[in-house]
This record gives sequence, structure tokens and C-alpha cells, in this order.
Amino acid sequence: MDEEKSIPIKIQEQMNQYVLQQGKLQLRNPHIKQGHDDILYHIALGNKTHDLERMFQDVKFVCLGGSPNRMHQFAEYLMSELDIEVPAGLGLTNIACGSDRYVLYKVGPVLSVSHGMGIPSLSILFHELVKLLHHAGCSDVTFFRLGTSGGLGIEPGSLVITEEAVNGLLQPYMEVATLGKLVQHPSRLDSELAQQLLALAQTEPQCQGHSTYLGKTMCTLDFYEGQARLDGAFCDYQPEDKMAFLKRIHNHGIRNIEMESLCFASYCQRAGVKGAVVCVTLLDRLKGDQVSSPHNILEDWQRRPQRLVALYIKQHLGGKKQ
Amino acid sequence: MDEEKSIPIKIQEQMNQYVLQQGKLQLRNPHIKQGHDDILYHIALGNKTHDLERMFQDVKFVCLGGSPNRMHQFAEYLMSELDIEVPAGLGLTNIACGSDRYVLYKVGPVLSVSHGMGIPSLSILFHELVKLLHHAGCSDVTFFRLGTSGGLGIEPGSLVITEEAVNGLLQPYMEVATLGKLVQHPSRLDSELAQQLLALAQTEPQCQGHSTYLGKTMCTLDFYEGQARLDGAFCDYQPEDKMAFLKRIHNHGIRNIEMESLCFASYCQRAGVKGAVVCVTLLDRLKGDQVSSPHNILEDWQRRPQRLVALYIKQHLGGKKQ
Repeated sequence: MDEEKSIPIKIQEQMNQYVLQQGKLQLRNPHIKQGHDDILYHIALGNKTHDLERMFQDVKFVCLGGSPNRMHQFAEYLMSELDIEVPAGLGLTNIACGSDRYVLYKVGPVLSVSHGMGIPSLSILFHELVKLLHHAGCSDVTFFRLGTSGGLGIEPGSLVITEEAVNGLLQPYMEVATLGKLVQHPSRLDSELAQQLLALAQTEPQCQGHSTYLGKTMCTLDFYEGQARLDGAFCDYQPEDKMAFLKRIHNHGIRNIEMESLCFASYCQRAGVKGAVVCVTLLDRLKGDQVSSPHNILEDWQRRPQRLVALYIKQHLGGKKQ
Repeated sequence: MDEEKSIPIKIQEQMNQYVLQQGKLQLRNPHIKQGHDDILYHIALGNKTHDLERMFQDVKFVCLGGSPNRMHQFAEYLMSELDIEVPAGLGLTNIACGSDRYVLYKVGPVLSVSHGMGIPSLSILFHELVKLLHHAGCSDVTFFRLGTSGGLGIEPGSLVITEEAVNGLLQPYMEVATLGKLVQHPSRLDSELAQQLLALAQTEPQCQGHSTYLGKTMCTLDFYEGQARLDGAFCDYQPEDKMAFLKRIHNHGIRNIEMESLCFASYCQRAGVKGAVVCVTLLDRLKGDQVSSPHNILEDWQRRPQRLVALYIKQHLGGKKQ
């Protein structure tokens, strides 16, 4: 019955731990039975219409980012970095092209997938990807979110690796209204993975030329009022209120603000997969609200999370290039 | 200072009323000054980089829907329904093509824009569209959301016109975490507009062949657990809990469930524009969870909100065809 809804966070973490210890990715849902029809509606795939095992069983890394173009670009970058050979006449193709909600590319054992903007859009995709990996019989999969964000007190173009995601009230959990009650799911991320990424960023020559921080990430449901901007269509507060808030959360350890990390972190934990959030900061919110750097500079910055995550993947596939 | 955050809903409604009485669309944000730079980042437009007045001043209707393809299709449909003549060699073009977050088409005085999935994605777009209309000097603009949804106790393929949007806890307001506090914005929709649409649906031959209902819409932050589905990657409740919840909300007057109406309704109210939500239902949630109707049937159903809204627009432009 409804016991789960009142289970405190600590016990939920223990339950998640149980799932983590399994080899193959298990679904924390007793109602999805092996062999039954399962339509992954928003990525236009299904366990009856597609041979998911043949298509996806080798997947070890799932890389998510908001923008379809950026995730296409990342897939192309991985092709070259991982030395993936493609027979003449073939090329990258969007596996989710039967729907226009997300794009999904596969490059060897890596998926590069767009998640749109905000928690609900990521949530739909995450549910369907976890089911996809489960139907495909995948094991030991690591998830990454490669994002853009507003920084706090750090130079634009810096990377932030999230140690913990918090919501707009600084709470370290995601709330899901489930059957009419709010259920809280903790949003801590794998600290070992975050440390490995930080070490890589600090030692690899490809990641030099900008700073990388480990810090807390605030995840909001809105880009304007939710992130204390003064430049939305609506604003009922004053510049001094905004600055007081941003300084307060900066003192709390928040280094960047974006719109998906809370869901990403809590779903990784629930799915029993390791996950990391690596975001570039496009501006310093202590200095302004508008994203006004030139297009080519923003483009260059957006490749920084890609370079770091691709390096990690290469190292862990044992096929390190250069 | 922070008084706004504790202003009760009733007074907020009166403030919104004030904005409604203006002619030209006013921003409820004293910090955006005429003449200052304003970059509409996610639709790749700006008041300095584009002549927004020349481009958009005639806009009277803004039509929003989740899917980019569907909103392109709607733009094409409007071209033919409104008898828009296009010089040889020209065609519909995505005005927001400098970004890959949304698509934005203009067909005479109508915008057809995709909003992605979920409240945060719609929220970003809505802020930027309202600023765009304000910079362009638009007046008397009506907003529509043309969506897909899960129905409750009604035949799949039916239309639901939303009379009130509620959240997953059945509350008729949208909460935005603003400067660390939850602010509630009421989510009632224009009842006159809803009634006009219902009357049109019941009398126009083009809208026959399926039922149209006026009812409450539940708006959730998640498609799976948030909508009491049993087929997500995670599920901590039983089929009988799900059915008890769905029957309870059906008894409460909820006729469909989707993921954007709450924000749409509350932002229409805050922006002082009339708004209506017209969704087709793709399944009856009292009978199942999966969207499993054939593709061509789903495609046909998705044109139903388009037909109704196009009819309304034609009537109100005085250029009714046929």
C-alpha cells in the first residue's frame, strides 16, 4: 500500500544501496514483467518492436545534455576520440527519430542523448532510458549529465562538478507528488566519481586553460524568478533582494545553478547507477543575469564538459588515445 | 522588498486584473526598461539584434504545443486555413532557429511555438515570449496551449478544455521557489474563452466525430510516478493504490492529466492575457498506462485541438473561410 510514501530518506537510501549491489541493471518496479510489452513512448522504442538486447547490451556510459545539437556534436566528438570505425556509406543516426522529443545517438558503448530543459523533461527520458538498459540486459552503466549553468562567484567558462544537488529551498532531495502525497528522494551524487573527474580535470592538458570546481549545484524549476533573475517577464523583488539571496546560497557552497541535476542525482541513486553532473558556467550570476557572451565563445565553453567526460570514458574503456 | 512573497492569492489576482485592463501588453517587471538590451536567449532573438516591432507587432494569437513537429504542422495548417499568401520562393521558416531549444513560426497574426515537455521548459519560453510581445508593442493577445494528455473516464481521442489547472496535490496554483521561499500563483483560466471554445466544438461540423469536455486538468512534474503509472523505471505503489488515486481525482472533476497547464494558466493570468488549454486525450488512464494506439490514429487525434483553435482564430480575425 502507501508505506513507501512515509519511508524516511535514510531507509530509502538503504533500499537504493540494495539495488546498487546487483550486477545487471534492475528495475525498482515489480510491475514490469520480463516478456510483457513495454513501449518507451517518448523515444519511440519498445521491447517488442525492437531487439533492445542486440542494439544496446554493450552500453556502459549514458551521457545526457539539454540541447539536441550539442548531444549530436558530442556523439561526433566521441566517434573520433574513441576511434570508432564506420563502414563507408553509414553515419551517425538518431535512434529516437520516430519521436521528436529527444535525440539518441549510440557511439560504441556510449549513448549521447538530449533531455530537453527542466526536471520533468529529464524525468520522462530517465525513466525510459533505465527501462531500455534493463530490457537490454546492461550492467555497470555510468551516467553523466553534461550541462550549461549560471556560475556563482567563479569565472565564466569554468566547470563545476556537482557534489550535491539541492532544490530552490536548498533541500538536498527531489520531491515527487506521488498519488497525492509528496515523496522525497535524496539527491547526493557518487563522490568517488566526482573526485575522479576533478583529478582528471586538474591533470590532463586538454582540461587546462580554465578552472574546475567541486561544489553544490542549485537546481530550479524556473530560469527567471527561480534563479533570482531580474530580467524575466515577471519580477516582484528588488535588486538588493536578489543579491542577498545569491550571496546567501554562495556562502552555502552553491557554485552553479541549473535545472536538471536534482532529478538526475536522485534517479541515479534510485536506479542504482553511478552518476556525475559536469556543467560549464556561462556567466557569473553575482555580476549579471543575461547570457551575453559571443556565440563562438559560448560554443567553445560548451565543449569543456564534453572533453572531460570523453577523457574519463576513454580511460575507463582502456582504449586511451594520444 | 519581500512583501510580494507573502501576498495572499486574492490580492495577487487583483494586481493581475490591473495589468489586464491595459491595452498594450505590459510587463510586470519594473526592472526591464525600454531601450535597454534584452536578449531572449532561448529563442535566439533580442530587442537590439532584431526589429521586434516590425517582426511581431501584428501578433494577436500565440499557440503553444510540446512537439516541434506538431507546431510546424499547425503552422502549415494555419497557412491554408487563413489563406496566407506566400510569394514564390518563400516558405515557413523557424524564427528561433538560432537556438535548438524551441521552434517558432509566424503565420500572419499567429505564432505557433513548441514549448518542450514540462513546466520548466514552458516557463522559460513563456517569459521570453511575453517579453517579445511587449518589446514588439502587441495588444490584445490570446494564448492557447494545444496539447496531448491522458484522459480520465472519457473516450481516447476526446478533447478536454481546461477550466482550472491543479497540481499533483489538487491545489489550484503554481508554486515557484523564489529567493528561497515558495510563492503561489493561481492557475484559473479565462472561463469565457473556454465556453466559447466549447460552444464552437459542439456546433462546428469539423469538430464532430469526437466528444469535447470542459473539466479540470491535473498538471504534474513527472509522467510516470507523478501520473500514478505502474510502468515507469521506479514504482513503489500497488495497482489498487493507483486506481484509488485516479478514481479520487476523477471524482474531483479532473478529466485529463498533462504537464504544462498549471504554468500556462498562472502565467497567462500574471501576464494579463487571455489563455485556454485544449488537449486531446491519447488514452483512458482508468483503463491503462501505455500509449499504444497506432501512430496514424495518434496523429489524427493530435490534429483535433488544432482544428478547434484554428476555427476560433478564423472567427475572431473576421476572415472565416468556407
